[in-house]
Amino acid sequence: MSAPMLNERDLAFYLYELFDTESLCQRERYQDHDKQTFTEVVNTAKTIAEKYFLPIRQKLDVHQPTFDGQKVHLIKEMKPAFDAVNDSGLPSACADYEFNGMQLPPIVASIAGAYLSIAGGNALGYSMLTTANANLLAAHGSDELIEKWVKPLRDGRFAGTMAMTEPDCGSGLADLTTSAVLDEDGVYRIKGSKIYISGGDHDLTENIVHLVLARVKGAPKGVKGISLFVVPKIMVNEDGSLGEENEVKLTGLFHKMGGRAHTSTALSFGDDKGAVGYLVGEENKGLQYMFHMMNEARILVGTGAAVIANAGYQYSLDYAKNRPQGRLPSSKDPFSPMVNIIEHADVRRMLLAQKAYSEGALALVLYGAQLSDDEKTAPTQKQRDHAHLLLDFLTPIIKTWPSEYGPKANDLAIQVLGGHGYINEHPVEMFYRDNRLNPIHEGTTGIQSLDLLGRKVVMNQQAGYKVVLAEIEQTIEQAIGVPSLSEYADHLGSALVTLNQTTTHLLKSMATQNIDLVLANSVQYLSMFGHVVIGWLWLKQATLASKALDGDLHDDEKAFYRGKIQTMQYFYRYELPEINLWANTLKALDDTTYEMKAEWF
Amino acid sequence: MSAPMLNERDLAFYLYELFDTESLCQRERYQDHDKQTFTEVVNTAKTIAEKYFLPIRQKLDVHQPTFDGQKVHLIKEMKPAFDAVNDSGLPSACADYEFNGMQLPPIVASIAGAYLSIAGGNALGYSMLTTANANLLAAHGSDELIEKWVKPLRDGRFAGTMAMTEPDCGSGLADLTTSAVLDEDGVYRIKGSKIYISGGDHDLTENIVHLVLARVKGAPKGVKGISLFVVPKIMVNEDGSLGEENEVKLTGLFHKMGGRAHTSTALSFGDDKGAVGYLVGEENKGLQYMFHMMNEARILVGTGAAVIANAGYQYSLDYAKNRPQGRLPSSKDPFSPMVNIIEHADVRRMLLAQKAYSEGALALVLYGAQLSDDEKTAPTQKQRDHAHLLLDFLTPIIKTWPSEYGPKANDLAIQVLGGHGYINEHPVEMFYRDNRLNPIHEGTTGIQSLDLLGRKVVMNQQAGYKVVLAEIEQTIEQAIGVPSLSEYADHLGSALVTLNQTTTHLLKSMATQNIDLVLANSVQYLSMFGHVVIGWLWLKQATLASKALDGDLHDDEKAFYRGKIQTMQYFYRYELPEINLWANTLKALDDTTYEMKAEWF
Repeated sequence: MSAPMLNERDLAFYLYELFDTESLCQRERYQDHDKQTFTEVVNTAKTIAEKYFLPIRQKLDVHQPTFDGQKVHLIKEMKPAFDAVNDSGLPSACADYEFNGMQLPPIVASIAGAYLSIAGGNALGYSMLTTANANLLAAHGSDELIEKWVKPLRDGRFAGTMAMTEPDCGSGLADLTTSAVLDEDGVYRIKGSKIYISGGDHDLTENIVHLVLARVKGAPKGVKGISLFVVPKIMVNEDGSLGEENEVKLTGLFHKMGGRAHTSTALSFGDDKGAVGYLVGEENKGLQYMFHMMNEARILVGTGAAVIANAGYQYSLDYAKNRPQGRLPSSKDPFSPMVNIIEHADVRRMLLAQKAYSEGALALVLYGAQLSDDEKTAPTQKQRDHAHLLLDFLTPIIKTWPSEYGPKANDLAIQVLGGHGYINEHPVEMFYRDNRLNPIHEGTTGIQSLDLLGRKVVMNQQAGYKVVLAEIEQTIEQAIGVPSLSEYADHLGSALVTLNQTTTHLLKSMATQNIDLVLANSVQYLSMFGHVVIGWLWLKQATLASKALDGDLHDDEKAFYRGKIQTMQYFYRYELPEINLWANTLKALDDTTYEMKAEWF
Repeated sequence: MSAPMLNERDLAFYLYELFDTESLCQRERYQDHDKQTFTEVVNTAKTIAEKYFLPIRQKLDVHQPTFDGQKVHLIKEMKPAFDAVNDSGLPSACADYEFNGMQLPPIVASIAGAYLSIAGGNALGYSMLTTANANLLAAHGSDELIEKWVKPLRDGRFAGTMAMTEPDCGSGLADLTTSAVLDEDGVYRIKGSKIYISGGDHDLTENIVHLVLARVKGAPKGVKGISLFVVPKIMVNEDGSLGEENEVKLTGLFHKMGGRAHTSTALSFGDDKGAVGYLVGEENKGLQYMFHMMNEARILVGTGAAVIANAGYQYSLDYAKNRPQGRLPSSKDPFSPMVNIIEHADVRRMLLAQKAYSEGALALVLYGAQLSDDEKTAPTQKQRDHAHLLLDFLTPIIKTWPSEYGPKANDLAIQVLGGHGYINEHPVEMFYRDNRLNPIHEGTTGIQSLDLLGRKVVMNQQAGYKVVLAEIEQTIEQAIGVPSLSEYADHLGSALVTLNQTTTHLLKSMATQNIDLVLANSVQYLSMFGHVVIGWLWLKQATLASKALDGDLHDDEKAFYRGKIQTMQYFYRYELPEINLWANTLKALDDTTYEMKAEWF
């Protein structure tokens, strides 16, 4: 198959048409960069993806990491691939020069990372978690901690993990029980069990640095009594050399449906005296630090979901263009040649839906990446605050919409391939399995919906809500002036009215009704808001496409922009109307789920 | 976990309340049976499921069949399990006494089979395909063929397969190229390659009987030139003993995402002189015979999908009732105890959706099983014709709705379990993978939709369409008199009007518009019809429940019926309104997918 991993024309559209990435080079932080260096970085990632990961992608999926009772072993091809990623500097693409980073804009790093994600599946997780771990320590650790741990993490000599979940505590971190006791020698002793620790053990690095959430003896109950600790697998001496093993024991591996290259482990801390842990920042502020990282992680989850959706779309598109099968209903003549399956309208429906989901999701996550940049590097404080408000509000949507619709896209990719989609000769069934984790980790869809409706919408006199709506209104105003788009601008305008009415109604109800009832349909609210946001980004894309089509274009370019407009049309006619159904149950404060009793099931 | 495979109270509801299965015993064919024997057969299946299959279910999934270059090997525990099923007589449960059958009603056999499906995954496929193979031969083969092949198939000494798909021909059987030439000694010589042959090789039986579609030299092109042949793996002598190997070569195994116990093979027929094949029935009528079997197979696919959906629902329900996590939004006090997750409204939403999908689908497929019985054994010719019309029309819906919504239910089962749902300690991720095949095999959803809108709706002056609508109207009339249900009866009435208007509009358009455009949204038509049918079956269930609740009931019974009514309410408020969106695009003859060009993607 000759399917591209991603559509390069489309990536250029996002970088240089939808988002004006080139203008970022005027910011001081990015002054060494230009379009050329952006392209080179993306190409480096693509080359590593093609050279090291694509050839072993299936092997990584089939040969899951194994546990010999002592250690975890990955297939031997993984180490050179991991090293190639580290040597490229990509894991620290966005970090400061002083931490050996490249100071690249996150939006560019996202696209570079996309190639690695597609080719390596979750194998990139070892690097990504290490980067996230280093970023968190760099932001919240003492100078001493930074000196000792961040450098080897950035170098790829050590790997990092995040150890939050416990056997009896997943979504509800308030109830975690891992304990920490301050020892006489000034370190903490950690005891407890953690599960689902991605990359909790492997043979890729000399050492592994666990960031562990635990409760210091005597700390308050709930989320206000959680602290964060660095707990290394192997102790590190003053001079940086490795010392004795810490009390961190691998107790088992989990066998996941997808993302199999990235091992998921059960770890036991401190079976004897307690594992040595170093406090990050202050006691009882651990969750706050972790949340800083989790907001980044949520955008990364959305990005991964969007990227896998695009990979499946590209693969099934290529298949549909090249696989002859059957004839059109209008031509049942068995003597006529078979048509390629893309000629069947229903196959085009499945491709259009994939395009709408995957490119809509990609636009959203890249927008998120840009906002995460703007909130730090935009020229004025006002712009930075504005970006922060937008990003903070949109995070549950950036995490969830791609996570929910990415797997739907992958489901359709399988269906386009038919029986061939169900076997591992083609990667679409793997994409489907890999993507299924995304609505679960870093906060399930249900939890994101409570965050959106229960917190984000009401926060600061609805400040976040209002700026998002204002952005959407701006796009509507622009599109309404384009004759071929005014119909869709009207649709989006109506959708906005519906969203607003629903929100107003729900906020009023919060004051007068049982909060559990008002929040009972919060997932539908998140779905509705997500669809409006994606509809907005599609209208934005169609507006640009429409303008481009006014010019004198090469046929390929014309086709590209026509495709954008037709996909927007698909989304508006086949998907967006769904919000009316969600609005109806929300506005009615439908109590069907709320009133259902456990014993009635 | 103590989760039941299926809800026994619910099964009894279908058998003895929704469908009056006991009354079948008045039919001559079933006169030896009573409720007692029905129960015994179901219990036998359940016992075999628990004893032989449940303990090896995960092992069958993890240890896929292997190919040593010569033969396929299954795990050793499979053979005793396969033998136990054969010894029980369940594979021939519905067959005539004279073929060693039990002459059981299909609806009872479906429920017995459901236990085996859940516990054995696709491992039951070896038996099911053997039965289907034997049934087809019994119906269309000569006495000689029946004598030689059907008996050992029914005994479980031989296994059977269906060999249709070829590397270049899946959904479009018209283009198959496997050839057959009549030899001087009166047998045919078969040459060609077949793929995705389930159970194409294994070590469970002495011999394997392939039913192969091939084209006799000189036959017409297209579907009218396809014949059906018995092609044994090993030749059988006059005395029934095994002879030489036939020219049937296993060329490889496919590695499927799910249903892994049932091996999928690539077979090469006749690499030298041609494999010996015996013609079934007449030349060029092969597809007709195969379709007879395929209609049965479509109902079986729907049944499998419904059953796996129920299994996932039961498992996640049990989990939700026993897993403490978090607190309600109204109670954030960390000192309050955690609640079981079923207390969270969004978890109840996911369980209600699963209940609506899985029990709705189960009601539908059992109705299909009953119709397949009635069309043969109902007392009067009029009743038999009526059942035939209903079943023939509903087959694409019976196949598709469970296949589309079953996986959605399994998706929600994973989500209820969260991270635990993504690992193979729990079976829900396997259910999700297993169920994903169902929208593909035995005619994809797209093909079913063309069958429904392009053929079934218009056939015989819409005779099938009309009887289905009349059945639904009857239920509406009954429900409208029940005060608590009249709201929903009205909904269904409106849905029927929408369906009717849409159908009328489409039929008119077929006469005046390009047929490819009219059929472009046929999947939406199938979705709409499916939802109306499921809505109908839920209203039927709610009507029975409502009547039962008028009586003096034990608390458990009250809860059961209240659950039925609440689930109906869920389906009517959260799912059924979707039909209006589908109707809108259908009535508009929306041309978005039709007009999309390959080069615009």
